[in-house]
Amino acid sequence: MAVGTARAAIKYADRDDLVVLALGPDTRAAGVFTQSDFRAAPVEIAVEHLDEVAPRALVINSGNANAATGVPGRADAMAVCAAVARSLGLQPAEVLPFSTGVIGERLPVAQMEGAAAEAVAGLSDHGWEAAARAILTTDTGPKALSRTVTVQGVDVHVTGMAKGAGMIKPDMATMLAFVCCDANVTTECLQTMVRELADASFNRITVDGDTSTNDAFLLCATGAADHALVSGPEDAGYQELREGLGSVATKLAQRIVRDGEGATRFVTVRVCGGADAAESLAVAYTVAESPLVKTALFAGDPNWGRFCMAIGRSGIESLDTTRVDLFLDDVCVARGGLVDMAYDEAEAAVVMAREEFEVRIELGRGAAEEVVWTTDLSYEYVRINAEYRT
Amino acid sequence: MAVGTARAAIKYADRDDLVVLALGPDTRAAGVFTQSDFRAAPVEIAVEHLDEVAPRALVINSGNANAATGVPGRADAMAVCAAVARSLGLQPAEVLPFSTGVIGERLPVAQMEGAAAEAVAGLSDHGWEAAARAILTTDTGPKALSRTVTVQGVDVHVTGMAKGAGMIKPDMATMLAFVCCDANVTTECLQTMVRELADASFNRITVDGDTSTNDAFLLCATGAADHALVSGPEDAGYQELREGLGSVATKLAQRIVRDGEGATRFVTVRVCGGADAAESLAVAYTVAESPLVKTALFAGDPNWGRFCMAIGRSGIESLDTTRVDLFLDDVCVARGGLVDMAYDEAEAAVVMAREEFEVRIELGRGAAEEVVWTTDLSYEYVRINAEYRT
Repeated sequence: MAVGTARAAIKYADRDDLVVLALGPDTRAAGVFTQSDFRAAPVEIAVEHLDEVAPRALVINSGNANAATGVPGRADAMAVCAAVARSLGLQPAEVLPFSTGVIGERLPVAQMEGAAAEAVAGLSDHGWEAAARAILTTDTGPKALSRTVTVQGVDVHVTGMAKGAGMIKPDMATMLAFVCCDANVTTECLQTMVRELADASFNRITVDGDTSTNDAFLLCATGAADHALVSGPEDAGYQELREGLGSVATKLAQRIVRDGEGATRFVTVRVCGGADAAESLAVAYTVAESPLVKTALFAGDPNWGRFCMAIGRSGIESLDTTRVDLFLDDVCVARGGLVDMAYDEAEAAVVMAREEFEVRIELGRGAAEEVVWTTDLSYEYVRINAEYRT
Repeated sequence: MAVGTARAAIKYADRDDLVVLALGPDTRAAGVFTQSDFRAAPVEIAVEHLDEVAPRALVINSGNANAATGVPGRADAMAVCAAVARSLGLQPAEVLPFSTGVIGERLPVAQMEGAAAEAVAGLSDHGWEAAARAILTTDTGPKALSRTVTVQGVDVHVTGMAKGAGMIKPDMATMLAFVCCDANVTTECLQTMVRELADASFNRITVDGDTSTNDAFLLCATGAADHALVSGPEDAGYQELREGLGSVATKLAQRIVRDGEGATRFVTVRVCGGADAAESLAVAYTVAESPLVKTALFAGDPNWGRFCMAIGRSGIESLDTTRVDLFLDDVCVARGGLVDMAYDEAEAAVVMAREEFEVRIELGRGAAEEVVWTTDLSYEYVRINAEYRT
């Protein structure tokens, strides 16, 4: 597949902000999209187009989300799809639109139509790096990676890119992630995988608990690789492909957290011993999103009572706090709901001074284990979001 | 009722940090307490003592929450109750303990026993102001008020005090609030009222969405006022009393928000037109707690798309966004889910520059209206909570 970028000057005057990805005729695709009620116009249209026909192109812009723009916003997104379709000789329904940026403003359609034609003219096999930069907003750097996985003994090439740093608590998908490969796999199989992969990667990260109106995660497969068709879990190569795509999705998701707005820490919150996945996740998210936990992470302060506070308000039915243990990496902080006999605050402070560490919570109720990746809450987060539009 | 304070030097060396409130023998009391699973030892003991016998004294300390302290923490709280009981000639069960401060550390019981005796020795009818100061932690000032309400034509005196600035999203009660009056009212009637008042005041505020392990709201009535006993809604004076107590509780709750950690704004989030109270509240809290909304409030930036983002992720079943309107005070920002034809951003910026304003959201689904009071998210919030223990 070929990638082109261009400058539509939507919000950023000094860089490319529009991307066209052209997909071969045999490409299959599947996506998951935000569950927000205020779904952006491009999300609605991408869902409809994906239902209708196999996509042949993606058009992505940064700087304007085209969300909360009503019927006019839909018309704007369709005009951009039509411009790409004209340049490539496709039907508009074969083009999927994606937007990210400020909510509530109209797209500058004329500028984007011109840029779309320019991006098509510049399509190349080496455009991924430029594309990964063009889709950014408050991100500090591009998030893209490639790897080769072996499926039925055949090399399959996987390339992914993502953007996102704030308004990050994906709900079934995240703020624009695209993973493409040349595997030979059915659309149905991709649909199953895209949900499973999203649940294990983009749906396990949080920066600020705010879910975007434009979240989308798209999985494409060109079918060019020379292995037998993979159509489900029983087929040879399914697990290899799933693991290969999954490792790319998870790495992209973690890069979003590492680039979280103002982030100085990358923290894994692991909740073990839950009665089921739902309660382990509830505890993990409550801890990962608590402003008081996050400011303590920023300070590197092992003020572990705040973890207990967050666990306590997670809404777990009849939690027995005398069975709760808390670890910071290998340091046992609390056992049975109160401070561990051997706890040495200096050791905990060493862990919390690390740029990366794990908070592990043992609930003592069952075998369910869940992981969420998160960041701290810093002055810089406030600065970025207080100054975003100015 | 008489109030005394003393310096136990629990965390703050230069001020009083322990309060004893002595209640007359005819006093009735009712309380609501945090729903956190990590309920502090004093909360557990206060609930048990209140079940057992009418309270004759309260002992309140700041600087240490005595939460996540297990069985030893319970023994500590009991020792403090016993010290107060000895000084006043009461049973320990007649004393209710309340603590607020750092979670996970043991109380300095010996210091507190000495201070309790000292506070009892200094009991006076004029101790409320000193008490309102002694219970503070990160608060910037005391929160207390008195008013006289007329019940059956008789003057009833109501005095309340509260503390709290962070870890504020009370769940059935808030971080230490006490409202006392001399009304002649049954315990059962107080129990009903305390829940209703909490729901309309302390349960309608949020600073950071974090629920404390020690929240408590206690309502006391000495019975000294010379009116006929009020035992339920059908009795004369019930509504007068409820409104009088309610206005004190609501003002105290609002003062907590005004003193929210780092707060520069006091914002009323009013959600109208919900199908039921639960969904109106869900939208109100999602908006009031969204970090992206709160940083926009701090910046005074009418970046109204963030309100749409928060409404969209509130989890409302099949919300029709084309019926959603958004107002900032009297400025209509969005109508039918997109920007209003007559919207002028300069007018919205004037509203958001105010220290107090209202965000009104019309859902267009029904008649349920709910209000939540909140603050912005500032650099100062991060500073306070990154430096709290240092």
